[in-house]
Amino acid sequence: MAYGLSRRKLNPKVPLLPGEGEKHHLTSLEGLAALSLDALSSVAYGPEAIVLALVVAGTGALSATLPVTLAIVFLLAVLVVSYAQVIAVHPDGGGAYAVAKADLGGASSLLAAASLVVDYVLTVAVSLTAGADALASAFPALAHDKLLVCLAGLALLTAVNLRGVADSARVLMLPTVLFVVAIVGVIVVGLLRTHPAAVVGTAQPFPAQETLGLLLILKAFSSGCSALTGVEAIANAVPTFRSPRVRHAQRTEFMLGGLLGVMLVGLAVLIRRDHVAPRGDVTVLAQLTAGAYGDGWAYYATNLIVTLVLLLAANTSFGGLPVLMSLLARDHRLPHLFALRAERPVYRYGVVALALLAALLLLATDADTHRLIPLFAIGVFIGFTVSQVGLVRHWTTRKPAGWKRHTAINGTGAVLTTLAALVLLLTKFLEGAWVVVIAIPLMMLLFARIQRYYTEVGKELELGRVPAPPDRRAESLVIVPLGEVSKLARHAISAALALGDEVVAVAVESDADRTRSLEQAWSRWNPGVRLDVIDSPHHSLVQPIVDYIQRAAQDGRLIAVLIPEVEPRHRRYEILQNQRGLLLATVLRARTDVVVCMLPYRLRV
Amino acid sequence: MAYGLSRRKLNPKVPLLPGEGEKHHLTSLEGLAALSLDALSSVAYGPEAIVLALVVAGTGALSATLPVTLAIVFLLAVLVVSYAQVIAVHPDGGGAYAVAKADLGGASSLLAAASLVVDYVLTVAVSLTAGADALASAFPALAHDKLLVCLAGLALLTAVNLRGVADSARVLMLPTVLFVVAIVGVIVVGLLRTHPAAVVGTAQPFPAQETLGLLLILKAFSSGCSALTGVEAIANAVPTFRSPRVRHAQRTEFMLGGLLGVMLVGLAVLIRRDHVAPRGDVTVLAQLTAGAYGDGWAYYATNLIVTLVLLLAANTSFGGLPVLMSLLARDHRLPHLFALRAERPVYRYGVVALALLAALLLLATDADTHRLIPLFAIGVFIGFTVSQVGLVRHWTTRKPAGWKRHTAINGTGAVLTTLAALVLLLTKFLEGAWVVVIAIPLMMLLFARIQRYYTEVGKELELGRVPAPPDRRAESLVIVPLGEVSKLARHAISAALALGDEVVAVAVESDADRTRSLEQAWSRWNPGVRLDVIDSPHHSLVQPIVDYIQRAAQDGRLIAVLIPEVEPRHRRYEILQNQRGLLLATVLRARTDVVVCMLPYRLRV
Repeated sequence: MAYGLSRRKLNPKVPLLPGEGEKHHLTSLEGLAALSLDALSSVAYGPEAIVLALVVAGTGALSATLPVTLAIVFLLAVLVVSYAQVIAVHPDGGGAYAVAKADLGGASSLLAAASLVVDYVLTVAVSLTAGADALASAFPALAHDKLLVCLAGLALLTAVNLRGVADSARVLMLPTVLFVVAIVGVIVVGLLRTHPAAVVGTAQPFPAQETLGLLLILKAFSSGCSALTGVEAIANAVPTFRSPRVRHAQRTEFMLGGLLGVMLVGLAVLIRRDHVAPRGDVTVLAQLTAGAYGDGWAYYATNLIVTLVLLLAANTSFGGLPVLMSLLARDHRLPHLFALRAERPVYRYGVVALALLAALLLLATDADTHRLIPLFAIGVFIGFTVSQVGLVRHWTTRKPAGWKRHTAINGTGAVLTTLAALVLLLTKFLEGAWVVVIAIPLMMLLFARIQRYYTEVGKELELGRVPAPPDRRAESLVIVPLGEVSKLARHAISAALALGDEVVAVAVESDADRTRSLEQAWSRWNPGVRLDVIDSPHHSLVQPIVDYIQRAAQDGRLIAVLIPEVEPRHRRYEILQNQRGLLLATVLRARTDVVVCMLPYRLRV
Repeated sequence: MAYGLSRRKLNPKVPLLPGEGEKHHLTSLEGLAALSLDALSSVAYGPEAIVLALVVAGTGALSATLPVTLAIVFLLAVLVVSYAQVIAVHPDGGGAYAVAKADLGGASSLLAAASLVVDYVLTVAVSLTAGADALASAFPALAHDKLLVCLAGLALLTAVNLRGVADSARVLMLPTVLFVVAIVGVIVVGLLRTHPAAVVGTAQPFPAQETLGLLLILKAFSSGCSALTGVEAIANAVPTFRSPRVRHAQRTEFMLGGLLGVMLVGLAVLIRRDHVAPRGDVTVLAQLTAGAYGDGWAYYATNLIVTLVLLLAANTSFGGLPVLMSLLARDHRLPHLFALRAERPVYRYGVVALALLAALLLLATDADTHRLIPLFAIGVFIGFTVSQVGLVRHWTTRKPAGWKRHTAINGTGAVLTTLAALVLLLTKFLEGAWVVVIAIPLMMLLFARIQRYYTEVGKELELGRVPAPPDRRAESLVIVPLGEVSKLARHAISAALALGDEVVAVAVESDADRTRSLEQAWSRWNPGVRLDVIDSPHHSLVQPIVDYIQRAAQDGRLIAVLIPEVEPRHRRYEILQNQRGLLLATVLRARTDVVVCMLPYRLRV
């Protein structure tokens, strides 16, 4: 997953900010436990993606798994070193979007932003489907209802995030530790055994459909690179580390790289030794788990831990996307509304939008992990590439000590990730990659269009220039629409008198009898304010008032319409109250330039 | 259809009202053409309902069609005389609800209202299914897609009514005249022939499942009474007639009764002579049409006219329900909102609600006319019964000249319609009548509950009593939330100065740099108003302002918050603007008692 500040940011109400209580900040080891979940959980689908890519050349081709994995681990090393440099150059966090904005500008940062949005959606989708795969490995009865399992998981995440989660990064440590122990255990125990403790799943024949050529190797490499998603998370979350931040974060990045590399290589060695091929209804990781632990309780426990960790990985997007959207909104590339991500209603828009897009992807791919992975990897690689190119630019323009070495590292990373992205695009174009090819430019266009609009508005409002002094105090007329003489009328007239130089009440009546009785009641009350009764033969309320106000608005005074609103004590009665006032307010705001004031009057019933 | 003011009322924008241009008012003959469509169109399903009820006793039992029809025509005569009296007693129109309210009070008027709502929904559903039957008789390919045809028709009506219809009663005259000519032609030409000109549809065997006893006769009578729906429409529309209104309306009522009676008897005679039995995929009326005109163009034309007239009959509900709802709202039995039926948005609620309920009924009954007719007839008969009982009460309490004769007529009507309603309820209870038995009391309960709420609110607001004089002019503080120094800020401060004794601007910032630059810009501008910058470390906008306002609200001054709103020129840009302001306004209105003022600023972009 490509962006996402730390999990600490997840709770929209009280995110922990830099400098806010140093003791709450993370040590390197805590950071590893808290921030690596997304990256480490990709071992659940990365190695399997390699196996599935190679097996089209027959089971014999699976011996290429180890070399392909070693190439991926080499790329991992490049990425880790590269991100250690990102941490040093951008200690305020930010990831691909921040790097692109600082070092590349304009279009590149739009590209980074669009690919990050794609990543967030796909992180949710892929983590859920991989989680469903793991769960179905333990409980084969679920194998035919994976889509349902995924949608149920998505509903759970959405509900939890709509309510707002009050967790902290530390909550994630236990699952991460359990996951690392389980997977490292699979490798160590598996390597100690001479042959698998148990075999699960049903064997399938794999006739060779292609020969094992360069293209297939490249495809396996590209698909397997999905195991690298998430290594950028630490660079995004530098501000959440304890001082010295950069040192702690870099150490965590290296530990993450080491751990992930060891896991990938270990699993690949086991795959090679046990001749693991795809089997019906169980994942490759589940086969390796059964090989190491047998098919008893440890098998179930490991699959459940993997499921849980993948569910938590999906959840990181729900914390990360609102952060990205607020950054984009502050750069005028999304509606300014989204800058208010600390506001619950705004945060909910993001949650619902993310859930809907993920649900769409799940439905479109029938919750098949391996149809989603190419899309996922493309988005991630665009983010990687933009970061690397940005750093190359950074080094070559500023030329600090050692800039040539830095440039070489980041350049290598950029070439490899570009290559992987291109291979995936070309080989998987018709199988779904076209969606990304269309979605990313469309989003870039949208961001650019929004930015242009805000620029125009800024010009019109003369932002950044000193405005003329305010008008000297104008006379004001407050118009109070009323239906009857009551305590509500008294409340409204009192408020209007406090605001206006002149106050006038208006009523709309279609019935001569009612007009007469209203006028009589008014003169009995005698509040010292004129009442104008407008005749409306067509039982229309709003248009006569709009006409009245437009006539009143001729004389240069400031006109305010004060609409008293009865607020019932229970929300269920709201449909019975206020609707006239709201209707009037809506029309006045759309069709006149008067100030529309709503005055609440709280009922006891 | 039981309620419904004239079609003139259909256009919510310019309904024609009593006294508004006498030349626009209807003569008796025009009234017949304009208001009889609903009643006359019931000959499309009424006779068929009798035939379908009797045929369970074998085709031999169909000879009872004529006597049953004669009994129905007798009831029709009683109803027509009775409604002529309603016209005289209630010349302001109003129908069952008005009669019940005037002469019976409380629960009876609630019963009338609830049954009228049921009627409106069922008028739409039954007219659409009968129209689909007529269309399928001409084009048998549609026979298996009647539900789809009905839903398409409903969608058309809904769309037309959402846009607002600009028709007048006169638009309905041509279809009505064509319909009368076609059906009277079927009877005259059919009786002149010695045997049917053509036979359409496929014969079906009808083994006798029951014997032709009293219960079956009663069932046939009750179902056939669905042919009487709509005879009350004229009594509802007296104000739309030319002076002398009562005389013109009564004459129209008698003409309608005569025409409908002739049609029903004529069709029954034809059914008897030609031994017409239900045949596959064609209606009874279509069989009679083919018998008279053959199966050439005249057959198609007649079926199309019948379809059109039924579609227009369904449309009457869309005009009638909003009128009923506004009467109920004025009696505090529905949200007051609905009294504003002349307002487009309110009118739309009614249209959409009616369309949804009708669609639900169509789906539940699979667009089967003969499953809907019992429900329809029950609702209509409750309305008839309430009107008759109300008039009996009227005569017996006031005892005008001839009150015994009047009482006898209305009493007979009441007994017959009660009987018909009971028979339908008992015989069709499990087949769907239970829906009506549940829906009507629930609606009555809802109306009563709403009325009680409004009574309580009225007490609390001291409606009808002279309130204390308004407070003497209080000091006012106007708070202006601002984000930056711009022309918008100037506009807002100018307006605030016109309204408040004291004005203060507030800004919420989470960033020290931005706070500083805002304060500098403010002092450069120097508008003579204090700026308070609230620190919000959590990027929250609303809560800090709410807290600020709650602190300011301690000192007894009137507090108004003036929120400047940027209004873009194109609606598509609205998502980019104003959202902060709307969010703030919503929260302030929910959680504080301050006056919330919205000040529009119209952009040129």
